[in-house]
Amino acid sequence: MRMYDLILKKRNGHELAKEEINYFVSNYTKGSIPDYQVSALLMAIFFQKMNSRETADLTMAMVNSGAILDLSAIEGIKVDKHSTGGVGDTTTLVLGPMVAALGIPVAKMSGRGLGHTGGTIDKLESFEGFSVEMTNEKFIENVNTIKLAVGGQTGELAPADKKFYALRDVTATVDNVSLIASSIMSKKIAAGADCIVLDVKVGDGAFMKTSEAAFELAKEMVSIGKNVGRETIAVISDMDQPLGFAVGNALEVREAIDTLKGHGPKDLFELCISIGSQMVVLAKKADNEEEARKLLIETIESGSALNKLKEFIAAQGGDASLIDDTDKFPKANYILPVVSHMDGYVAKIHAENIGLIAMELGAGRATKESVIDLSVGIVLNKKRGDKVSAGDVIAYVHANDTDKAEDARQNILNNYELVKDYNDNIPLIYGIVKGE
Amino acid sequence: MRMYDLILKKRNGHELAKEEINYFVSNYTKGSIPDYQVSALLMAIFFQKMNSRETADLTMAMVNSGAILDLSAIEGIKVDKHSTGGVGDTTTLVLGPMVAALGIPVAKMSGRGLGHTGGTIDKLESFEGFSVEMTNEKFIENVNTIKLAVGGQTGELAPADKKFYALRDVTATVDNVSLIASSIMSKKIAAGADCIVLDVKVGDGAFMKTSEAAFELAKEMVSIGKNVGRETIAVISDMDQPLGFAVGNALEVREAIDTLKGHGPKDLFELCISIGSQMVVLAKKADNEEEARKLLIETIESGSALNKLKEFIAAQGGDASLIDDTDKFPKANYILPVVSHMDGYVAKIHAENIGLIAMELGAGRATKESVIDLSVGIVLNKKRGDKVSAGDVIAYVHANDTDKAEDARQNILNNYELVKDYNDNIPLIYGIVKGE
Repeated sequence: MRMYDLILKKRNGHELAKEEINYFVSNYTKGSIPDYQVSALLMAIFFQKMNSRETADLTMAMVNSGAILDLSAIEGIKVDKHSTGGVGDTTTLVLGPMVAALGIPVAKMSGRGLGHTGGTIDKLESFEGFSVEMTNEKFIENVNTIKLAVGGQTGELAPADKKFYALRDVTATVDNVSLIASSIMSKKIAAGADCIVLDVKVGDGAFMKTSEAAFELAKEMVSIGKNVGRETIAVISDMDQPLGFAVGNALEVREAIDTLKGHGPKDLFELCISIGSQMVVLAKKADNEEEARKLLIETIESGSALNKLKEFIAAQGGDASLIDDTDKFPKANYILPVVSHMDGYVAKIHAENIGLIAMELGAGRATKESVIDLSVGIVLNKKRGDKVSAGDVIAYVHANDTDKAEDARQNILNNYELVKDYNDNIPLIYGIVKGE
Repeated sequence: MRMYDLILKKRNGHELAKEEINYFVSNYTKGSIPDYQVSALLMAIFFQKMNSRETADLTMAMVNSGAILDLSAIEGIKVDKHSTGGVGDTTTLVLGPMVAALGIPVAKMSGRGLGHTGGTIDKLESFEGFSVEMTNEKFIENVNTIKLAVGGQTGELAPADKKFYALRDVTATVDNVSLIASSIMSKKIAAGADCIVLDVKVGDGAFMKTSEAAFELAKEMVSIGKNVGRETIAVISDMDQPLGFAVGNALEVREAIDTLKGHGPKDLFELCISIGSQMVVLAKKADNEEEARKLLIETIESGSALNKLKEFIAAQGGDASLIDDTDKFPKANYILPVVSHMDGYVAKIHAENIGLIAMELGAGRATKESVIDLSVGIVLNKKRGDKVSAGDVIAYVHANDTDKAEDARQNILNNYELVKDYNDNIPLIYGIVKGE
């Protein structure tokens, strides 16, 4: 087999066979096919597309390029949840305890990563003493007893994906739905779950800017799941404004706790119930979504989800008393109100820029070397559709540096769009995509 | 400027500006843009095409990547001739002396190259003592006095083209008309001619297999010439069977001499007159093609072209007496007839395979290291449309190895197609493309 022939075949619009896909993925990963041939193939794929069979084969070839986590020692159906990424997205911290409270095992491998705020591990380190350092055996034991554990990712899952992504990033071949879908799914499948619920974000603060693009991606990923025997459901949700109010690490943890106590932001709560009910049905703990919703709401009302969070934090060395006394979380020195000069309705909050402003304050990592400040961030006070009068506080900046705080204040103002009349009707949930 | 943005721009179907084209050509040539970005761009160009302005800019960017020959010390209008390559193509050896005999300066820089037979220099080395080694001053002086000189290419013309070609060759991005046209034209323009006549071959033994593709390429190259101020004319000619009868180095030189003596193959003679008349008109030695044809035919009838060949060979150290006594050229030990078993008309001679058979005999270079055997090759005895009876000799193999000779004999038989009735009417000249 020659890489040249594969490029030519795809360039001319033909389908690549499974062995051909395995050939270029494995040989590229081990370095025996050069970057310049792969980038030419990727560009040919951009123009000629891949069908769903090719996309599934590409996904599995990337899965098989590295270790696949073995979660077989965990009892029950393992359902993983993945978000395509947004701003102020605290769903994992809320959903984990809710679902675990229903006896569904949540075995989460997480990273730190780059972005507007830290990764799940960074956020959880807002609990003093919390650690992801533990043996594999301890991790499995925690999942089996508590039903919820978060581990640090050891070894590299789907290393081929990392190599492909780095190349796509510099050759303008990122935005092809087969390549995006296989990249996401390869990592999820390698992480060992039986079923996957995807939260595909759409809007200003998401990678997918239009609902058409989001649905296309969702369908492709659900199709991959079906093709490789991992049942997958995608929820398409709004990311045209930040989710909830808080953007920042400790701030988001506090918001998650508020939500588990029954008084969190409405959008965050509703999204958690929507995604969670899909997880509960997949885990066969309910026969349908309606029943699942009821069970999930009960975990809030009964306090079982909040207790599950305490149990989980304590089991990994964290100070669970912060859950009852949230004032003990890391706090910023300055909390500055952002005041509107105008009257009107909030028509738009540029989510992506709000995320970048939080990162500037120190909430996220611009580079791998950045040190995260857990205390800083932004708490929105007005959201899309809210009425604002001149003099109203639209948001609060939490900062440890007065210059940065002032910059953030001005930038936040610039990223709120006010209008006289607000008539838009952007849904929180655009739809749900399931395999046929 | 960032290479990423150029890839994205072309991928999305937009036109690249001149400065953008200069940027990637010059930076790729000096190594500051990596192969993998250039191959992605080339694949994007394959799909989104380049317009004629972009193609001309690409050509000049490649011209400017290296030295441009300065032929200003040569008197008169310098007209270069280039063939896109075929089998048994001896036109340069015939045309050079004819055109020079009319006082048109022919300053030819040539190489050895790979192929079915050697390059022009290899062929000329069939004259014992012939050499292309001379100073620049001597080369210019020879052109000014004799009007004909062949030099070895010193320094690299259009080095960017070489780098791009090597990359295209391994990334399935060769066959795009803008890339092919700019590759050919960049080398011709860097070689310093004022005007260019292109012989674009079409058919089995040519790179362009259909007349549509050949005309498209011809138009693109003529358009480049017009855009960069070098008048260019393209003759589209048949290469569905070898040109003339001889395929091999000394064999082709003898055929060229026969043609200059007035008894060469009809097709070779006619093609030389067609291409030559374009050159004569461009050089302003005739007002129209008809007049130019007459002048060229006179150089044969008067013997002035043959004398020009003698003068030229002698001036570069070669034994010009071989021109009168062609039996003194290097000769193969074995000359074997290829005999037909069948009756019929020759419908097709697979030109490309005939070329490869000659190369197997030792007439050409498969790799840069191959040593050429000047004496070997093939002389066809029957051409397309000829009647053949069982027992007739259709070709002769000239070989120095009996095993290779036997293989060649069988292979040649396999590459002749005989039919009962021959009605095809494939023209020698498909057409001529000139700038408007």
